[in-house]
Amino acid sequence: MSPAGTGRWRARIDPKWNIAGTPNGGYLVSIALDAISRALPHPDPFAVTAHFPSRTEPGEADVEVVVIRSGRAHSTASASLVQNGGTRVHVVATFGDFEALSGPTIVRETPPSFPSPDESVPASGPVAPDFMKQFDLRLTPDTATWATGTPSGVAEMCGWIRFGDGRAPDTRSLALFADSFPPTVFNVGPAMWVPTLELTVHVRDKPAPGWLQCRFQTRYLIEGYLEEDGEIWDSGGRLVALSRQLARVHTQEG
Amino acid sequence: MSPAGTGRWRARIDPKWNIAGTPNGGYLVSIALDAISRALPHPDPFAVTAHFPSRTEPGEADVEVVVIRSGRAHSTASASLVQNGGTRVHVVATFGDFEALSGPTIVRETPPSFPSPDESVPASGPVAPDFMKQFDLRLTPDTATWATGTPSGVAEMCGWIRFGDGRAPDTRSLALFADSFPPTVFNVGPAMWVPTLELTVHVRDKPAPGWLQCRFQTRYLIEGYLEEDGEIWDSGGRLVALSRQLARVHTQEG
Repeated sequence: MSPAGTGRWRARIDPKWNIAGTPNGGYLVSIALDAISRALPHPDPFAVTAHFPSRTEPGEADVEVVVIRSGRAHSTASASLVQNGGTRVHVVATFGDFEALSGPTIVRETPPSFPSPDESVPASGPVAPDFMKQFDLRLTPDTATWATGTPSGVAEMCGWIRFGDGRAPDTRSLALFADSFPPTVFNVGPAMWVPTLELTVHVRDKPAPGWLQCRFQTRYLIEGYLEEDGEIWDSGGRLVALSRQLARVHTQEG
Repeated sequence: MSPAGTGRWRARIDPKWNIAGTPNGGYLVSIALDAISRALPHPDPFAVTAHFPSRTEPGEADVEVVVIRSGRAHSTASASLVQNGGTRVHVVATFGDFEALSGPTIVRETPPSFPSPDESVPASGPVAPDFMKQFDLRLTPDTATWATGTPSGVAEMCGWIRFGDGRAPDTRSLALFADSFPPTVFNVGPAMWVPTLELTVHVRDKPAPGWLQCRFQTRYLIEGYLEEDGEIWDSGGRLVALSRQLARVHTQEG
């Protein structure tokens, strides 16, 4: 990403993050967060919301950042990812600083019990989309069955993920991980294409190095629209992010 | 709301929607949605995301609308609510049209079984904040115990709500209803003030007239920050909205 004027950046959308020719939404959000983080004094994205008005092409894009407010505990900015004069992704993020927090903690849930990464099914092999090859992604045996033609019948995807190049996760990459699993609906029926309309990620803590444990669930598929609710725990078993996206199921290409 | 130039509106923030002197966040979002809806061709907000960078005062405010994209199935715009030159609320919404949908429906959950409104506890009586008096709000006996000094110990608020003036709910008012219940944390301990940092509402269907059944739950209170996950069903038992907010607990005023 290179500077292109006040609050403007020129970014390269690398095709290695493509799925079937289209850049992954979480990857595009991570580019927007990179630009936003340069404009704000706080280090960690606490709340990230992204709308995806139209399809992004791999290649060059402009990123336009507007600081909405810079306060003591939090700061907020928007970033538009623009190609050919049209906004492809519009992100708003409120940043804070996990090192500065002190307050009560009451956690009602522990991470679910999954088979270990070694007992799970690699989903980032040679026939996977380019995007998947950037990760080491293992699906639990129960939720990996769609890949061999036997959807589980339950709209869930669960498993483990880490970067393929050995990089540790950080607070800014959690929005990418929140959009990195195959769509939950692959386990309930035919779905060609499940574009995201909106993705919200709440980063709740700094992730420790190592595997991230993830669960994505859909409870309501209504007239072709569904939510995907994600929970991400770090290798220490602490919840580090909650995500939700609204997506639309297309059963045929187009 | 009156026009004040291209994409600009002058709005009045009515103090009757205040809680302890501060306008309710869902009410502010509903003002932003009113302005956005005048700029977009689609009638229904499908995905609404709102960041609250600073406290809004009751009184006058400017609402600045920017259309991000207007497409065939969806359109997206932002609205900033501005007072004294500072953005108080920043909303982005993607609209669509529920009448135009056709797609698969698979619903995994039915509404929870609650005591009826008549068996529940009115929470909008004379000593309630002004905001609550705009509604007929009934909390389930299990989740109403905090009000008599005995928090239930579980961070949930459940019950029934409708407008106090008999108006039926519509797709644009669901963001207001999603922020209308007392904070879940009132049932786990002392909390003076629980300001919202970010609120996302996914409207999933048009609500039928009558009571809305609501469940708000918090699973993770971490270092003073919590999510509130909301589900709203209409009088026909259909899910009409999912909401999530990130909020911060202040145990003392200030």
